[in-house]
Amino acid sequence: MFKKILIANRGEIALRVIRTCREMGIKTVAVYSTADAESLHVRFADEAVCIGPPSSSESYLKMSNIIAAAEITNADAIHPGYGFLSENAKFSRLCEEHNIKFIGATGEMIDQMGDKANAKSTMIAACVPCVPGSEGVIKDFDDCEKIAIETGYPVMLKASAGGGGKGMRAVWKPEDLKDAWDSARHESKAAFGNDDMYMEKLIEEPRHIEIQIVGDSYGKACHLSERDCSVQRRHQKLTEETPSPFMTDALRKKMGTAAVKAAEFIKYEGAGTVEFLVDKHRNFFFMEMNTRIQVEHPITEEVVNYDLIREQILVAAGVPISGKNYYPQMHSIECRINAEDPYNNFRPAPGKISTFHAPGGHGVRIDTHVYAGYMIPPNYDSMIAKLITTAQTREEAINKMKRALDEFVIEGVKTTIPFHRQLMDHPDYVAGNYTTKFMEDFEMK
Amino acid sequence: MFKKILIANRGEIALRVIRTCREMGIKTVAVYSTADAESLHVRFADEAVCIGPPSSSESYLKMSNIIAAAEITNADAIHPGYGFLSENAKFSRLCEEHNIKFIGATGEMIDQMGDKANAKSTMIAACVPCVPGSEGVIKDFDDCEKIAIETGYPVMLKASAGGGGKGMRAVWKPEDLKDAWDSARHESKAAFGNDDMYMEKLIEEPRHIEIQIVGDSYGKACHLSERDCSVQRRHQKLTEETPSPFMTDALRKKMGTAAVKAAEFIKYEGAGTVEFLVDKHRNFFFMEMNTRIQVEHPITEEVVNYDLIREQILVAAGVPISGKNYYPQMHSIECRINAEDPYNNFRPAPGKISTFHAPGGHGVRIDTHVYAGYMIPPNYDSMIAKLITTAQTREEAINKMKRALDEFVIEGVKTTIPFHRQLMDHPDYVAGNYTTKFMEDFEMK
Repeated sequence: MFKKILIANRGEIALRVIRTCREMGIKTVAVYSTADAESLHVRFADEAVCIGPPSSSESYLKMSNIIAAAEITNADAIHPGYGFLSENAKFSRLCEEHNIKFIGATGEMIDQMGDKANAKSTMIAACVPCVPGSEGVIKDFDDCEKIAIETGYPVMLKASAGGGGKGMRAVWKPEDLKDAWDSARHESKAAFGNDDMYMEKLIEEPRHIEIQIVGDSYGKACHLSERDCSVQRRHQKLTEETPSPFMTDALRKKMGTAAVKAAEFIKYEGAGTVEFLVDKHRNFFFMEMNTRIQVEHPITEEVVNYDLIREQILVAAGVPISGKNYYPQMHSIECRINAEDPYNNFRPAPGKISTFHAPGGHGVRIDTHVYAGYMIPPNYDSMIAKLITTAQTREEAINKMKRALDEFVIEGVKTTIPFHRQLMDHPDYVAGNYTTKFMEDFEMK
Repeated sequence: MFKKILIANRGEIALRVIRTCREMGIKTVAVYSTADAESLHVRFADEAVCIGPPSSSESYLKMSNIIAAAEITNADAIHPGYGFLSENAKFSRLCEEHNIKFIGATGEMIDQMGDKANAKSTMIAACVPCVPGSEGVIKDFDDCEKIAIETGYPVMLKASAGGGGKGMRAVWKPEDLKDAWDSARHESKAAFGNDDMYMEKLIEEPRHIEIQIVGDSYGKACHLSERDCSVQRRHQKLTEETPSPFMTDALRKKMGTAAVKAAEFIKYEGAGTVEFLVDKHRNFFFMEMNTRIQVEHPITEEVVNYDLIREQILVAAGVPISGKNYYPQMHSIECRINAEDPYNNFRPAPGKISTFHAPGGHGVRIDTHVYAGYMIPPNYDSMIAKLITTAQTREEAINKMKRALDEFVIEGVKTTIPFHRQLMDHPDYVAGNYTTKFMEDFEMK
């Protein structure tokens, strides 16, 4: 087993990983930019190394600094969290070259799956249902126009290196394609240093349902059922739940089997998520695979009684999995509490938290790196806490979420708490009747 | 179902009940003494009524004020929490007379079971194994001397109306009996307004293991397995866990069956706890029955996925239980965080909490009524939070507790956090090798 793990991330996920390491008796090294010196992940790690100024590209994305921090502190593994370098094939290989275990996918797997365009060709080879569209990366705009016609409008342009909605454009008619192509590539270049694009058929009224999988280093994989992440705003997930209110036992079995097939086809090692779009007839299409832990992983942990970070560490250390699949025993919902103003177009609202009182009690879990007096830096994600409620039924989990949101006191910055509170009363949400378009019509009261 | 419940209590248990009521869509009324005006239970209830000055006897024990508060606010039920009036037969009857449902035992059941001496005669009639000792209340000191000789020294004197260690005395030889008799009666009179005493054989090296039961209004009862509460200091529980490390499947079945038999014998309605002493040969003896919710109920909730407060409310409203018993699926530990100085004989340390940051993440539950800026009044219990960790195994639950205790930041007052942290590293605790005598030899480092 690893003796010391460096966590190449910040915020709640850095703290999340530190917690499991402590519970496993593994020492931890935090890295931080100067903007994060007062963050809890720095406080709770056994050691902490400053790796640069606030700008991500000079700190959390700066591979050489992170490798140096691992070597200085003698860490034998690196956990990348999500975002930043978590799906960077070059970084995964760099760790390997320095004889540091990267707790995530190998460079090869990331090339196959982390890259959204290549992933699709791989999945077609593995006979996993895919959304019609380009085969791999689009060569140029002429190619783009041709594929759009073959696929049939509406289509979706997506950045190969993308994630979190960056570099994505929906295109409804041919005359809008050029503008979308240019702006998506520009955005992708700025965000990921890469402007490769691919295209997919835009599925109308789709649900975003993803399957959590874990693979070990012996080629075996299992799934831990689904998460419904359809409540999104500009492709950013706002709240997630499991089981999906749209799921049936038969569909779960089919989607789970497809996800395990995908993972085993590439001998996937570690925790990963196979994202599908599900149409109203319950056809499902492979969308992409995230070769890392997801923000929303706790809801799966709550309903299957399973620590996913622990499992990531175990399989990275060569421990085999049992191979059995996990099915939800409870219902769990996560609300992402962001420092954003829901009354002002979810505009980021960084600043100093003056009061912070988290809800507690039966069935309530909080994952957060903030506290009263914490200054939210403007440099990174605006997520400041994840609030997770779990109960026997969906109705009870919603009622629990309502009372937990009512108890949550954050003063000094605006947050998305009022949004989530209104969402939990929205008749379509309560009925489980929502697609990824849900937020387009949502208005704050 | 009830429309509005008044919670005749304070602190974390008042908040605990309010939370479940909110989740069930039931309105709540908080009552509070002037010392508790700033407490969270007042803030989170739908209505709040001040019922008197800080002194318990003038507020939380003042039946007429509480009944008046219920009538003014039109509450149709009263939840008494634990302590205060929760096992007061007169109050239970008073509620009934005022046509307010008392969410707890009837006056008759409390007379039978809440009173420790009568409980024993009832259990003997129900063929539940009991500790040898007096049959009911001791008449006078002559009677006391005679029974002590019949029972055999060492013996334990206990207040009939007692609880929480008040009015209890261990007596190891005849010449100490008179002093013990006088002081225990004096203490009982002061605490409970009643100085009836009973006597039991003192079982050496005993474990305190209790069985949670729930009975409905149709005479059916079930059990939810055990809690081991052997880590006690002066009969005050400090930490509890379930399953008990001393438990076997066979013993659990026997003790569970005895507890259900006890409950059904008296047609017990509501949540209750049958406390047993278990000797080193795994013989078990009925000790007492608590006809109310216990402080340590959350560990049971965590391992059986069951909301006990909800169940109390449901059975009080006449909903039948299924009758099936519940067995632990996980391991759960509770540490009672008290405002006491563990380095100074656990001396109460009321005062103002300047900083409060609770741990979070996977498998961590917090039940608390305090927050940064909260002034702990000197008038009541010193418990300020319950920290509960739950995991697949006992070892994992202990490791999780350690990291959660390490994360817990409470500044401004001394707390028992350092004690719990040392306990979790104690070889005998880690081995599960502890009895109710454990704390006699425990020393803080």
